[in-house]
Amino acid sequence: MSKPITQVPPQANSTVLADELIAAGALFHRRGWVPATGGNFSARLASDRMLITVSGVHKGELTRNDFLVADLEGQPLEAGRKSSYETGLHAQLYRFDPNIGAVLHVHSVANTVLSRGSDRVRLQGYELQKILPGISEPQVAVEVPVFGNDQDIARLSRQVEAHMNKRPLPAAYLIAGHGLYAWGETITQARHRVEALEFMFECELWNRGN
Amino acid sequence: MSKPITQVPPQANSTVLADELIAAGALFHRRGWVPATGGNFSARLASDRMLITVSGVHKGELTRNDFLVADLEGQPLEAGRKSSYETGLHAQLYRFDPNIGAVLHVHSVANTVLSRGSDRVRLQGYELQKILPGISEPQVAVEVPVFGNDQDIARLSRQVEAHMNKRPLPAAYLIAGHGLYAWGETITQARHRVEALEFMFECELWNRGN
Amino acid sequence: MSKPITQVPPQANSTVLADELIAAGALFHRRGWVPATGGNFSARLASDRMLITVSGVHKGELTRNDFLVADLEGQPLEAGRKSSYETGLHAQLYRFDPNIGAVLHVHSVANTVLSRGSDRVRLQGYELQKILPGISEPQVAVEVPVFGNDQDIARLSRQVEAHMNKRPLPAAYLIAGHGLYAWGETITQARHRVEALEFMFECELWNRGN
Amino acid sequence: MSKPITQVPPQANSTVLADELIAAGALFHRRGWVPATGGNFSARLASDRMLITVSGVHKGELTRNDFLVADLEGQPLEAGRKSSYETGLHAQLYRFDPNIGAVLHVHSVANTVLSRGSDRVRLQGYELQKILPGISEPQVAVEVPVFGNDQDIARLSRQVEAHMNKRPLPAAYLIAGHGLYAWGETITQARHRVEALEFMFECELWNRGN
Repeated sequence: MSKPITQVPPQANSTVLADELIAAGALFHRRGWVPATGGNFSARLASDRMLITVSGVHKGELTRNDFLVADLEGQPLEAGRKSSYETGLHAQLYRFDPNIGAVLHVHSVANTVLSRGSDRVRLQGYELQKILPGISEPQVAVEVPVFGNDQDIARLSRQVEAHMNKRPLPAAYLIAGHGLYAWGETITQARHRVEALEFMFECELWNRGN
Repeated sequence: MSKPITQVPPQANSTVLADELIAAGALFHRRGWVPATGGNFSARLASDRMLITVSGVHKGELTRNDFLVADLEGQPLEAGRKSSYETGLHAQLYRFDPNIGAVLHVHSVANTVLSRGSDRVRLQGYELQKILPGISEPQVAVEVPVFGNDQDIARLSRQVEAHMNKRPLPAAYLIAGHGLYAWGETITQARHRVEALEFMFECELWNRGN
Repeated sequence: MSKPITQVPPQANSTVLADELIAAGALFHRRGWVPATGGNFSARLASDRMLITVSGVHKGELTRNDFLVADLEGQPLEAGRKSSYETGLHAQLYRFDPNIGAVLHVHSVANTVLSRGSDRVRLQGYELQKILPGISEPQVAVEVPVFGNDQDIARLSRQVEAHMNKRPLPAAYLIAGHGLYAWGETITQARHRVEALEFMFECELWNRGN
Repeated sequence: MSKPITQVPPQANSTVLADELIAAGALFHRRGWVPATGGNFSARLASDRMLITVSGVHKGELTRNDFLVADLEGQPLEAGRKSSYETGLHAQLYRFDPNIGAVLHVHSVANTVLSRGSDRVRLQGYELQKILPGISEPQVAVEVPVFGNDQDIARLSRQVEAHMNKRPLPAAYLIAGHGLYAWGETITQARHRVEALEFMFECELWNRGN
């Protein structure tokens, strides 16, 4: 929060970021990770601003018009437009850590099935864990916590915040029956983490019962 | 049935609707949901008219010539052309509810496997359930009924009608070994429901035996 | 064999057929059904001629140069070119039934896994069975026989012939650990049958052990 | 190592090879085999040179700038650029066998799951085994060894070398939780082997527990 407001022209910046989010959405849709109107994406525009997908659009077919600017309390700064109803979860992350530059939320079959059965997903022995922050050795276990699904987003975001104050997250958490939130300093880093996590979740799905 | 006939030029309208159905078919084919000549799609043209795919064409490679106009008894209004043999199931839905604007029928591996084993598919705890009518809370259980497959489409459509008169459907039903019928007020809404339902069915497939 | 030679200009004809087989190969590759150089495709050019893929090429990236003309003993009519080593299996089918116009051989994960475990794959209760010859009712069981894999193609083709003389095949057979042969009067019909069979095989794969 | 340096202009050569590796990467990404920044690809430029992907790039979205030239000790010949940290594993293969022209490393769900559970993957009865060197008969069992994952690449490459000195490999090995290394005389041959191996691994995944 103490980081000064970025001086790049906000309009140019937001177009570049929107185009990157549009491309991420098209990729995720080909993978089956943003069915129907599920998922939402955001990127930090400045220390106190984010660009986020509007409510109710298909995340695999986004256009530049499908984004709005919101503050870090989750309030849209454009009159008459409604952001994704989970905007508060994005805002919590940007407030919590000024180094977070992008947050991607996706629904995959693997993350949905795994998140319904447990309060955490434990990953160990995967080379791809190394893409998560602070992991240089695949033998270290990583735990992605699963929060219960809650239609009260303010309450859910306080639960996430309380958890993050106790122990650092592996740049990701799950919501039961609902999907993955993953983040990074850039959209590219966040996207790579989504790809790596979804890959490991799919491996775990095949491992169940074996 | 009492809704007045829409006044838009029917020809322009049907081209727009056909193009949307063509795009839905291409997407569904990439997903593997319309193998061979399986599936069929329709959209309401007016209170007493629908546009529907002709018989025997591949639903992933549709052209504007692969549609015909039929009345809501399922009779083609163009001489010499044959509509999908399941036209009667589409007609039943448009007659039953004037708010239905599109009906999409797809065969997926998930819906086929699930529909062969049970008389209903129960969905509970999925965030994506909220895309179904009247569901604002994922914890509410949704039941998608499975009707037995029947080559007598008139008899099958009466069975669907009897069920719908008893209790509302979640904008969808299954036919055993045959696939999903899902609908919405618009083609877009119907497509989103197909995506959400197929996603949840795939999750259920992974959950069997666990 | 008694059907007179088709009078269409053979060169034009073979280009059209090659283009259809190229498109089928691209589709099958997207589905994962022609890995590496696996699979081979052919179409009848005349009562005593077929067009068939040459040996060793990738079936998902075919060009017009990747085909040759062979007689129905499987002998290439172009000096210095080698047809797929399984040409004899295609030739047996064209000799056996003059109505066969196209033969497609694919390797899918589903057909490979199922064919390794049994001497037949039994399909029953699938609406898509109706795309197979003589099936108008999904409740009728269809059996796709599995022949043991044999590097002696002449011997394997005699085994297929002996089986076909005893009972008609559902326009398809499997070779253990090797894949599906399916056919039709046209390339389109053969392709639709491949799509329908692979769909049902995938359903069967999910059903094993349940 | 005694093979004379190839006389083709190295610059032209490396562009052609880069373009082939870029195409392989795009295909592998569509298949889900190079998630995040996982995987790395190389091709031999001369008896003592290889072209290899730089560190940290996405292998499904490679450009010509994402490659560098290294010697066969794995040292980049371009100042200031860093090759994939597993360059030593590529170098070991090129040093070991002068006929190796390309090495492809991919992470698939199938190879990751299988490699975590065993010290080898045994393949038998698959027609596609014939694409591996020295296999003309699918009934011969092929064993793909699994090496333990080790962040000390020099040590891991010595372990591979010791194994290869004892018995020939089927142009492929696995690293536990990390992925497949496969090679061939050309990029095309290596790519076909990756496709065939991944296909057989996927079949094995379905066979587990049955």
